[in-house]
Amino acid sequence: MLAEIITIGDEILIGQVIDSNSAWLAGRLNEVGITVGQITSIGDDPAVLENALEEASRRADIIIMTGGLGPTKDDRTKQTLCGYFGGKLVLHEKVLENVKTIFSRSNRPLLDSNMRQAEVPDNCRVLLNSQGTAPGMWFEKEGRVYISLPGVPFEMMGLAGEQVIPMLKEYFRDRLEPVLHKTLVTTGIGESFLAELVAPAENFLPPYIHLAYLPRPGMVRLRLSAYGKELTASGNKPAEGIVSALQLEKELDIHASRIMELAEKYVIATEDTPVPEIILNRLRERGRTLATAESCTGGYIAHLITAIPGASDVFSGSVVAYSNKIKSSLLGVNDITLTHFGAVSRETVSEMAAGAIERLGVDYAIACSGIMGPGGGSADKPVGTVWIAVADKEHVQAEKFSFSGRRPQLIERTAIAALGMLFHFVE
Amino acid sequence: MLAEIITIGDEILIGQVIDSNSAWLAGRLNEVGITVGQITSIGDDPAVLENALEEASRRADIIIMTGGLGPTKDDRTKQTLCGYFGGKLVLHEKVLENVKTIFSRSNRPLLDSNMRQAEVPDNCRVLLNSQGTAPGMWFEKEGRVYISLPGVPFEMMGLAGEQVIPMLKEYFRDRLEPVLHKTLVTTGIGESFLAELVAPAENFLPPYIHLAYLPRPGMVRLRLSAYGKELTASGNKPAEGIVSALQLEKELDIHASRIMELAEKYVIATEDTPVPEIILNRLRERGRTLATAESCTGGYIAHLITAIPGASDVFSGSVVAYSNKIKSSLLGVNDITLTHFGAVSRETVSEMAAGAIERLGVDYAIACSGIMGPGGGSADKPVGTVWIAVADKEHVQAEKFSFSGRRPQLIERTAIAALGMLFHFVE
Repeated sequence: MLAEIITIGDEILIGQVIDSNSAWLAGRLNEVGITVGQITSIGDDPAVLENALEEASRRADIIIMTGGLGPTKDDRTKQTLCGYFGGKLVLHEKVLENVKTIFSRSNRPLLDSNMRQAEVPDNCRVLLNSQGTAPGMWFEKEGRVYISLPGVPFEMMGLAGEQVIPMLKEYFRDRLEPVLHKTLVTTGIGESFLAELVAPAENFLPPYIHLAYLPRPGMVRLRLSAYGKELTASGNKPAEGIVSALQLEKELDIHASRIMELAEKYVIATEDTPVPEIILNRLRERGRTLATAESCTGGYIAHLITAIPGASDVFSGSVVAYSNKIKSSLLGVNDITLTHFGAVSRETVSEMAAGAIERLGVDYAIACSGIMGPGGGSADKPVGTVWIAVADKEHVQAEKFSFSGRRPQLIERTAIAALGMLFHFVE
Repeated sequence: MLAEIITIGDEILIGQVIDSNSAWLAGRLNEVGITVGQITSIGDDPAVLENALEEASRRADIIIMTGGLGPTKDDRTKQTLCGYFGGKLVLHEKVLENVKTIFSRSNRPLLDSNMRQAEVPDNCRVLLNSQGTAPGMWFEKEGRVYISLPGVPFEMMGLAGEQVIPMLKEYFRDRLEPVLHKTLVTTGIGESFLAELVAPAENFLPPYIHLAYLPRPGMVRLRLSAYGKELTASGNKPAEGIVSALQLEKELDIHASRIMELAEKYVIATEDTPVPEIILNRLRERGRTLATAESCTGGYIAHLITAIPGASDVFSGSVVAYSNKIKSSLLGVNDITLTHFGAVSRETVSEMAAGAIERLGVDYAIACSGIMGPGGGSADKPVGTVWIAVADKEHVQAEKFSFSGRRPQLIERTAIAALGMLFHFVE
């Protein structure tokens, strides 16, 4: 079962918006055994959309569109689809009711353009959108399904998760083939060295199990994908006999544990769980608490941790000590340490970590200080120089890093490295 | 001048990675007058790539590919392109030297797979990549340019920014047409209400100037785009006579100021500058300092601020008071306030903001506390309930918000609303 995603909107093509919808949708489709063969981003233009629909229809069984459903003049997807599938727009009472409810809830006046959101093509199944005014639409033509969803991410996620995915599972229930993934998260080893290390296992993979290396700042994820009868996105031919999810899963497990044996030293998780979540789970099991004392990462480590639901069991808080004054006043870093060794030094981060343990009253702490650029570098401490410390009530461990990249990457790398250090420290 | 971007890699199609490269590239291309007509994501499969190249060649003059250049077996772009353009792989001395330098810098052993990174097609111009081992490649065929770049974002950005964009400007110097954008950032007004408000100006736009509404959590950006002679991504026909950038800019300015007049009350910036940067610039001009006291946003506001280069002039730091204990110990919130009114209340956030001003020694502070879900909501204070306070040394202003969405959106919305409140407070 092959799907394609078409995202509609000039904002992606001029680079003002990053398309996060497609990755989310692709992940959900994969989970139910629908392979995404292509993702296409096009502008808000009827002729271009019609052409994209023609091309996608030649390749895929399911075409999901996002975007172009807003109430303003630059959104023309609904009209285009209505015409393409030969229908006409009619007022939909339930959608109108929903639009009115949303507006009354936020005490905003209802405008003509909002009323038009309640007009839908008479040849589609309407997917009611409780989070916004634009409904989703489900069209069928020549055995293919075409779905149009709003581009606002949480509206799209609500509609797709609650309605579209279950409807697709039902509609194609006899044709869905298993696709299974297994991910190993590694830190402390480069992509090519890791590949040499696991080569003995990789060379034994059957043609329907595929290994991918997914590098991210500070880590490489190894993803094994096992495919059922259908052709895969990357053209790997699956074995004829392998069709049941159970069989496939058993095989996948065997190959994953071979790779695991070879790379064990570097593996920090056997599922695609964010590193902060792995750490939170581990500390929660042991009833321990955590805080951060951040200079160069400016609160980003705390953000990564608190983005995980339920972080408050473990995470007490953070002092973002961007200025030296706060390093001493709130974390108790000695002024002499700061003058003598500088803010980016083993001594400073060690005192920051110890200070966080004491002043925030926690069991573990992460501290970091570095030069994120573009300014502030020197011959001695160039941009990318970072000191990280992790500590418990008795020990402090500090390490120096020399990262490359620009400011956003440096912040990201520092955060991941710090979390990696804590992970190994807690072990 | 029309370009297309092709991103290569199964990781996007299975939803494990969000394609941030395309938006960045599209933005840079637009700046130099190259319109991006389509972005396509495909798997690591030679036949699929060749087909995508054929389709893109029928529409565009420039085809930029990212990804599929890693040293491991799942990356096959280089071989595919070499064959597609009829060349053969040869060892490139300078690339080899670069690979060796990178490995010696990080004290890692050089492997066979890394050595193969130094093999390049003999029919391309090699773009040396100082940030990584995979070089970029520039092919030409029948007047079209095909560029292959690594998928690692900062390597891609380095190569594109320093080499590809200048080379494209030079190569197509006689054919580049002006494309100009102007953005107004608004807060405090919904998309459709904003559209009604600016309708009198929008109705007077010539066909070659296009207005788009770009909603983001807590704000709507209005983007005016003016196109030169070329066809636009969205098929808006530009006026024949309008070709000079100067003429176009003048027209754009007139229409932008008409819209500005109508929406003035809601506009917080007249360029597409991140809100934290607008605030930092304003406070810097006045020699003021800022701190945050964050509960529910967990350091995200501090992160948004410190992501801006040079934030340290203005931003002193933050206390992420995730636990109540830290709200009182580090920010001086009265225990009675916490027990009597709760952590999510006007009283608590007001004391947090005042505490931040005093304890972090700053002129302005933002404080927030709320229920981000999925757990923790009650009938009285459901998930999405947020209190935000902004303060200077004399005044505190607090406001209650009821946001909708899931946890990541709630964190984002709270942060943007808090920054918006501070913006108006400082005015």
